[in-house]
Amino acid sequence: MLGDSVHTGVTAVLPHGGNLFFDRVPAAVFVGNAFGKLVGATQVRELGELETPILLTCTLCVWRAADAMVAELLAMPGMERVGSINPVVGETNDGALNAIRSRPITPEVVRRALAGASSGRVAEGSVGAGAGTIAFEWKGGIGTASRVLPKTLGGWTVGVLVQSNFGGVFQVMGAPVGRELGRYAFKGDVERERGDGSIMIVVATNAPLQDRNLERLAARAMLGVARTGSSASNGSGDYVLAFSTAEQVRRRLDPGRRDPNTPPAPRAVQELGNDEMSPLFQAVIESTEEAIYNSMFMATTVTSRGRTVPAIPLDSVRVILAKYGVVPR
Amino acid sequence: MLGDSVHTGVTAVLPHGGNLFFDRVPAAVFVGNAFGKLVGATQVRELGELETPILLTCTLCVWRAADAMVAELLAMPGMERVGSINPVVGETNDGALNAIRSRPITPEVVRRALAGASSGRVAEGSVGAGAGTIAFEWKGGIGTASRVLPKTLGGWTVGVLVQSNFGGVFQVMGAPVGRELGRYAFKGDVERERGDGSIMIVVATNAPLQDRNLERLAARAMLGVARTGSSASNGSGDYVLAFSTAEQVRRRLDPGRRDPNTPPAPRAVQELGNDEMSPLFQAVIESTEEAIYNSMFMATTVTSRGRTVPAIPLDSVRVILAKYGVVPR
Amino acid sequence: MLGDSVHTGVTAVLPHGGNLFFDRVPAAVFVGNAFGKLVGATQVRELGELETPILLTCTLCVWRAADAMVAELLAMPGMERVGSINPVVGETNDGALNAIRSRPITPEVVRRALAGASSGRVAEGSVGAGAGTIAFEWKGGIGTASRVLPKTLGGWTVGVLVQSNFGGVFQVMGAPVGRELGRYAFKGDVERERGDGSIMIVVATNAPLQDRNLERLAARAMLGVARTGSSASNGSGDYVLAFSTAEQVRRRLDPGRRDPNTPPAPRAVQELGNDEMSPLFQAVIESTEEAIYNSMFMATTVTSRGRTVPAIPLDSVRVILAKYGVVPR
Amino acid sequence: MLGDSVHTGVTAVLPHGGNLFFDRVPAAVFVGNAFGKLVGATQVRELGELETPILLTCTLCVWRAADAMVAELLAMPGMERVGSINPVVGETNDGALNAIRSRPITPEVVRRALAGASSGRVAEGSVGAGAGTIAFEWKGGIGTASRVLPKTLGGWTVGVLVQSNFGGVFQVMGAPVGRELGRYAFKGDVERERGDGSIMIVVATNAPLQDRNLERLAARAMLGVARTGSSASNGSGDYVLAFSTAEQVRRRLDPGRRDPNTPPAPRAVQELGNDEMSPLFQAVIESTEEAIYNSMFMATTVTSRGRTVPAIPLDSVRVILAKYGVVPR
Repeated sequence: MLGDSVHTGVTAVLPHGGNLFFDRVPAAVFVGNAFGKLVGATQVRELGELETPILLTCTLCVWRAADAMVAELLAMPGMERVGSINPVVGETNDGALNAIRSRPITPEVVRRALAGASSGRVAEGSVGAGAGTIAFEWKGGIGTASRVLPKTLGGWTVGVLVQSNFGGVFQVMGAPVGRELGRYAFKGDVERERGDGSIMIVVATNAPLQDRNLERLAARAMLGVARTGSSASNGSGDYVLAFSTAEQVRRRLDPGRRDPNTPPAPRAVQELGNDEMSPLFQAVIESTEEAIYNSMFMATTVTSRGRTVPAIPLDSVRVILAKYGVVPR
Repeated sequence: MLGDSVHTGVTAVLPHGGNLFFDRVPAAVFVGNAFGKLVGATQVRELGELETPILLTCTLCVWRAADAMVAELLAMPGMERVGSINPVVGETNDGALNAIRSRPITPEVVRRALAGASSGRVAEGSVGAGAGTIAFEWKGGIGTASRVLPKTLGGWTVGVLVQSNFGGVFQVMGAPVGRELGRYAFKGDVERERGDGSIMIVVATNAPLQDRNLERLAARAMLGVARTGSSASNGSGDYVLAFSTAEQVRRRLDPGRRDPNTPPAPRAVQELGNDEMSPLFQAVIESTEEAIYNSMFMATTVTSRGRTVPAIPLDSVRVILAKYGVVPR
Repeated sequence: MLGDSVHTGVTAVLPHGGNLFFDRVPAAVFVGNAFGKLVGATQVRELGELETPILLTCTLCVWRAADAMVAELLAMPGMERVGSINPVVGETNDGALNAIRSRPITPEVVRRALAGASSGRVAEGSVGAGAGTIAFEWKGGIGTASRVLPKTLGGWTVGVLVQSNFGGVFQVMGAPVGRELGRYAFKGDVERERGDGSIMIVVATNAPLQDRNLERLAARAMLGVARTGSSASNGSGDYVLAFSTAEQVRRRLDPGRRDPNTPPAPRAVQELGNDEMSPLFQAVIESTEEAIYNSMFMATTVTSRGRTVPAIPLDSVRVILAKYGVVPR
Repeated sequence: MLGDSVHTGVTAVLPHGGNLFFDRVPAAVFVGNAFGKLVGATQVRELGELETPILLTCTLCVWRAADAMVAELLAMPGMERVGSINPVVGETNDGALNAIRSRPITPEVVRRALAGASSGRVAEGSVGAGAGTIAFEWKGGIGTASRVLPKTLGGWTVGVLVQSNFGGVFQVMGAPVGRELGRYAFKGDVERERGDGSIMIVVATNAPLQDRNLERLAARAMLGVARTGSSASNGSGDYVLAFSTAEQVRRRLDPGRRDPNTPPAPRAVQELGNDEMSPLFQAVIESTEEAIYNSMFMATTVTSRGRTVPAIPLDSVRVILAKYGVVPR
């Protein structure tokens, strides 16, 4: 994964640095709860592959962002004859801090997000598609985390990037941070707050997995979300996209047309079998949980449209974590 | 169903004349083959309902069309506070006759399509989203058909609208029209034509059905497609959207917020049970098959971008149908 | 829910005390991971209803248990003409303590399980289908828990019954009990233990829900499982069955045949809409988590086939829970 | 595919002659309509593979047949330590001719079915699991058909076996045989016959396909069913199982345990890509359609339980086919 780039309102994830349309990666979608928009989901499922970068943005921005990414991709060298392309764009609703009814996304912002992706350290917190998001009643944002399996379990890496904009009864490694700080869903009978809001999750791995096992991997990301205190409320758009960057499972389109008299040849693939999945499942759960914490702990207080959403007070969190034995007292 | 409106490049289907966002209809999606884009599919599945009209357009137009419909809907009276909406937009690829790489759809065209929908007779053939489509190597387009069940089976109506842009080995009520006219997929070893292309299908019924049985109904539309000679080829985006217009199953949002101290009340619904579905299944199959024939028989020859796609020669079709006993000799 | 009955090797869950075949309840299945057998799953999904009790038993016992339950049900009064019935039977693999290769289930045991169900308190621990199960390397078993929503959120009850036979990195309300006690999956590079094993979960509610929202409810049970430290490993058969016992959504078959000249009438239903689901989601997550703890805390040490699986040492657990602030020090 | 064996009440399909548990084939399930029992479906989907032969039998026989097959397989050499196995057993309801309430299947019959499978010509008509089935109001049964793709399209073979027990408005290559012979569903307002009944379909191919593309292939079998006049009525259990016999996609379990210190290695696979699927789709549609005709044309009149179900009169069919130009006059 090249990583994301940071521009207001949009975050781009590029599985690799080449032209994805001709050099596709196996991919899968898992739906935690679909009160949210995920442009391109059905085709990813049918063909089991990703043929564009992934964009994350605001709820009412997804269609403009998709159109802008398509324009950008169709203008790339070698794409002159392409007449069908499946942009993948997800979102969360940052309408409290962002004037989303105007669909505030421009081709220029999308272009810069796509161009700015690099393989270095990914910016976290109130950046990119996380600039306006809210998580557990504090400022949310972009977060990442990863795990490397021990050699005897394959040595593969699993990385997770989240756009956190959801709620529930926040806990950190089990410590009831939300209750201690007095902000949590379902506080009282009269209180109608139900933990609504969404999370978009992107899972990348260099393990050579194909689509079915990537879908199983994606499903486990929701188990990581659960550990932070979410109930995937009715109003949430909780989606997981997973892909493999391994060379052994890439799907390369032949730029030239095949000689029609030559029989088609099966492609050679090297893939992990079902039996090797469990350690990867554990890795994606831990990475998702940690990426969510990072998205909040790295976020900064944001004021916009007359509303201020504070960053979670890290000092208080530290005290609570010590109280509950998560960190040493 | 109010019917569709006819404007170059887009066809709108409105389940009723009110504001769908506040007066939703149960709805379902069935995926025949998903090498195609269906904006909004995942949320329709999760919530089991449609909250916007349905637009059909060209492959690379779907995102602009969705954005334009959202703008149109957000500007309607009563929508001032709406911050999430799920436009449903489908497509087929008419890139041979339509310069789709420029995403030739404008807000004005979408506006007129939405405004022009009426409950009268639906225009068929080379109109709206069918202006540039090709079916079985002849001009395709928009087609509709319906069935009314006998009273003892409920008396319900099933109507189908298709945007035909697909291929295969064309047959009409079993008569091998494609083979007789020398145009069909898989003609010879060297011939690479594989019947690619897509069909978008909208199924409307006044039978009081909820989402699960609407999904089963939607699935049967593909059986109607099969009867015309399609194999739902790899490259096809064959999607079915089904909804019920029955008052008894409508889902009305309360414009005012509920008193938080009042317990939620279940809503009253009257719905058909599983046992009443079979006649509706038969009706949707027959309607889909007939709607496809109508889309082709009503289409006119179109020349564009230096290419001419002829309408199927009806005189020849009549002769073939007589030869095979479909119509009297 | 009448509750379960307790007999060695099988646990029965009866949604109500009548004949389920004629008085069906809406139902749904969610698949957490399907390396396990769930007899009857596909029909429950298609028709959205349960027409028999649910049995839980051992992996290799499911088919005999299903056949025995069918025999039992077909012999009931009024069932003389029934020629199709869909028994629902789930399992976990207790092969370490149970000689499952001999499929040790008899019609008599199934009969007594079905007859013995009552609406009283459900036995927990090493009983029924939980007699031989192992959870997080200690003795698992049957566990239950429930939540009652506040009146302003509807006042509905959600109850959960689990058959725990799975693994992972055990935690109780976040406290790392497994690590503290030195038993957990993925301990070291060489250690191959991967938290395999399964959990069967039955969710019952008196909230008037139909199948789609029951499926969403079922999905949340897996979030409760996640909170105990499971990663739904590759080898797990993690299934959730959810049903509603509410009178307003029952589906009653007419014992007599309908007059063929009378048109079919829609049935009247009262059901909760999507917007009321979030508190129920929270309830099912909490209930599942607690039911798992109960299944272990109520289990007793079992010795069988030369192997002893100890109950988790409650005194040690209490100390750990105090250390991590879950219970007062 | 080794083919099926013929014994009253059960038909076995063996993907190959070895031990499937250790030498698995990629497999997939497609659900046309699930008012029917398919033991083992969920695990096939999760793992994407078949680890036992497939049995077809009567509706109320599936659980006994599954248990008997498990006994048989567990007793095979090398299976001494196997504690989990996923038998796949499908069914149609032949209760009119077969006293299915007594679940008339014995271990001996299952044993002979498994042992008797050979790679020779498969018996068709009123045999095996087709002994008592009824299709379109005539005697149905077992039928098979296959297609071999031209070399330039890969040269692969697709074979289909059906157990036909369904209804509708029968047509043969489009000729309205049912209407001409006066037997068809939905004849009149009062007539309640709705084409109920089921079809089980097994698709085998030597094309090197993995599970996702096998599922897409399986979906196309229902399009073949559609061409014979079925509407997949509410009461039908229409399931398709597809598997690949290609060596390049086999999944071999290592009988010995892996050295825990050796990292897991990806397995090498050669598989067809999405772009090669269309000719296979066409082949499975044609094969399914033809297999259904064969199941009826090869069936013989059967009298049982006081009821006679006649074979379709082939002389009359021939006349009708000539009248409609399907065969030369």
